[in-house]
Amino acid sequence: MYRIGIDLGGTNIAVGVVNERYELVSQASCPTGAFRPYEEMVADMCAAVEKALENAGVSISQCESIGLGSPGTCDSEAGVVVRAYNLGWFNVPVCQMLTNRFGIPARLSNDANCAALAETVAGAAVGCKNMVLITLGTGVGGGIIIDGSIYAGMRSMGAELGHTVLVLDGEDCTCGRKGCWEAYASATALIRQAKAAAAQDSASPLHGKERVSAYDVFVAADAGCKTAQSVIDRWCEYVAAGLTDLVNSLAPEMILIGGGVSRQGERILQPMRQYIEKNCFGGKEGAIPRLLAAKLGNEAGIIGAAAL
Amino acid sequence: MYRIGIDLGGTNIAVGVVNERYELVSQASCPTGAFRPYEEMVADMCAAVEKALENAGVSISQCESIGLGSPGTCDSEAGVVVRAYNLGWFNVPVCQMLTNRFGIPARLSNDANCAALAETVAGAAVGCKNMVLITLGTGVGGGIIIDGSIYAGMRSMGAELGHTVLVLDGEDCTCGRKGCWEAYASATALIRQAKAAAAQDSASPLHGKERVSAYDVFVAADAGCKTAQSVIDRWCEYVAAGLTDLVNSLAPEMILIGGGVSRQGERILQPMRQYIEKNCFGGKEGAIPRLLAAKLGNEAGIIGAAAL
Repeated sequence: MYRIGIDLGGTNIAVGVVNERYELVSQASCPTGAFRPYEEMVADMCAAVEKALENAGVSISQCESIGLGSPGTCDSEAGVVVRAYNLGWFNVPVCQMLTNRFGIPARLSNDANCAALAETVAGAAVGCKNMVLITLGTGVGGGIIIDGSIYAGMRSMGAELGHTVLVLDGEDCTCGRKGCWEAYASATALIRQAKAAAAQDSASPLHGKERVSAYDVFVAADAGCKTAQSVIDRWCEYVAAGLTDLVNSLAPEMILIGGGVSRQGERILQPMRQYIEKNCFGGKEGAIPRLLAAKLGNEAGIIGAAAL
Repeated sequence: MYRIGIDLGGTNIAVGVVNERYELVSQASCPTGAFRPYEEMVADMCAAVEKALENAGVSISQCESIGLGSPGTCDSEAGVVVRAYNLGWFNVPVCQMLTNRFGIPARLSNDANCAALAETVAGAAVGCKNMVLITLGTGVGGGIIIDGSIYAGMRSMGAELGHTVLVLDGEDCTCGRKGCWEAYASATALIRQAKAAAAQDSASPLHGKERVSAYDVFVAADAGCKTAQSVIDRWCEYVAAGLTDLVNSLAPEMILIGGGVSRQGERILQPMRQYIEKNCFGGKEGAIPRLLAAKLGNEAGIIGAAAL
């Protein structure tokens, strides 16, 4: 049997068909066209599913389920996207619509949760029952896997791990709270921290630059910019402090880091491991998890959705 | 059938027999006599079990299991108390010893986890599948229930919720880290905060007092001491900030507050609820749990152990 996964993004809808080993056997995509009536967007999504099936030479009767990873707040039990601001979706009963169209069970979860699940079926965490994926990007996303399944809590509203406090009453966070982990540990925060530090250091290649990416900060450090390196060092501590909280609270077997900056690999993972060993409950005798970079890239969303 | 629960404390070992409704039908206890050879302590524990059975008029063949709640780090899977400093226990295979003695399955968990489980079978959280119990005492203890069972993570070392960060690099914590929730939100922290504030206010009934209890702080506030009340207000925010993190990460249906200060009831719960509603992800639309005081007192340990 096969499974269908849909990664619903703000810009594109990516659809894939996976086999029993969660290998992608075909893909198709279409523009999301956000903020149209949701019925139109779901119709385009269904057309992309048909296309992916056709590309795979697979019929719908050979598929056991269809899964959707959506941004925003998803009620997995009800199969409803409760709120996805960047799509303009509010209380969209997407699972019912997909089941009506294709006649197979449809399942739904948040995209961050799907990415975590994908790593357990086909990525860096295969065979791992309890793990957490932290995605460092514009924000800090979280996906929690407990006993091999996504854990999202009441009305699937948990796993907002970026919105746990790091510095009470600290930096403003996009969520309205102050001092969230995300406000210190996201790629966006790294850039903000680097710009602020470089403004004080006219020798820095980042000095006075309007547009700075997270990658630029690492390149500047490579070029010998001590300011950039010290920002990176401190940022790694911010990330690791939140990871230490996860170790102390959930004691997962593994923590994976995703997002563009995870491509920096050992350069950021090594200092984070040291911080965790030093600061977690019980220190070196503590519940030290394996800390690795996530393995799946853009396909994580599709594969995780298919695995729902 | 009946079940046996043992609450192993630093001073006393309390044993109880519960019926199928988790009502205590008999109890017995003995001094722990910590730091003796563990074989002696387990022998005394077994004698207390016999006594409790005798008091209940129940034979061991009518009991389906025996459970132990222990302080320190417990490996529930292996049935071994890994480290309990206040008992002097290191790698004690207590479950095997109990099973050898009584011929029925023996189970083990941390005392904070047992207290949480007890509330779900016979306390304030009956019927609740996902909940967290926070005990505010000398420290801040945590017990996490997911899908009706204790969640403790790898080698049962998680749920150390008091040791998640509230203020990065803040107050020293007993665990060696700085800025843990426990260092701000425990009853001990409330007392420290009240003493520091009262030192600056000669009109406070707490001014210059050597020994201050958490209860004294509430009494002072009742007597009109504004300093004490403002310390309580701020302390409620410290507690609630950590509860908000739990809402955002685990989205439990219910959070229970245990420990002596929980007897203050609505006086502390009401401001905490307001803080959570204001600060949690999604605000009033967020995953607001029910926040209540724990119901079971001293028997929680026995009942939870029996329910393992």
